Amino acid sequence: MVKAVDHVGIAVRSIAEARKFYEALGLEVESIEEVESEGVRVAMIPLGPTRIELLEPLQADSPVGRFLAKRGPGIHHLCLASSDVRADSAQLRESGFSVLRDEPTPGAGGHRVQFIHPKSSGGVLYELAEE
Amino acid sequence: MVKAVDHVGIAVRSIAEARKFYEALGLEVESIEEVESEGVRVAMIPLGPTRIELLEPLQADSPVGRFLAKRGPGIHHLCLASSDVRADSAQLRESGFSVLRDEPTPGAGGHRVQFIHPKSSGGVLYELAEE
Repeated sequence: MVKAVDHVGIAVRSIAEARKFYEALGLEVESIEEVESEGVRVAMIPLGPTRIELLEPLQADSPVGRFLAKRGPGIHHLCLASSDVRADSAQLRESGFSVLRDEPTPGAGGHRVQFIHPKSSGGVLYELAEE
Repeated sequence: MVKAVDHVGIAVRSIAEARKFYEALGLEVESIEEVESEGVRVAMIPLGPTRIELLEPLQADSPVGRFLAKRGPGIHHLCLASSDVRADSAQLRESGFSVLRDEPTPGAGGHRVQFIHPKSSGGVLYELAEE
């Protein structure tokens, strides 16, 4: 079962530029970290019970780099908090939806994560994350 | 001050088709209403403290209809709950960001709403909503 929006992932060319908009709204960047394996620098902006994640590519040939080249900056994915990613993945598969990985994989912060193919979920790249 | 994600607006060609994905995740459509002035049918899906809004155009020549023609289905806008839309709008203008309307306007559910031009906010169409 999914129970909340964990975070909204937004592709940006520059965290240094993009953060100004959020700061003008009174929000604060809590942390910035580089995830080498995904080729991305991530700025976390807490927003009530959820978070905005600004995603800046470390190189052009990375998932977020390719997204920017194709679509330009904007919302990249929507992550839903799940109480059981494995069960949700099985339920989606049974209902005919395409999940990207056979098994949930380790994600940031020790989460188990799964992705749903946007062609299967109305053009939205969904991530499911379980603590 | 903004304090939470009020809802995520997602453009869909058909609510009847798109809802199946959310129902496979155990979520439920709470209501469907037509907003003639915006040329859109809106399905509300509560998700913890926030909501997913599926937006289906009533005609091709409408904001969501044009979005679908240009971009295809996917996330259309992100709405942030604000305690004072007028003050946030003024703060954004002072910081050099473009808000779309001179004054907040009435939105769904008696909210006062404002929009920020996506060119000004990193490719994301933001709505600010005050109860």
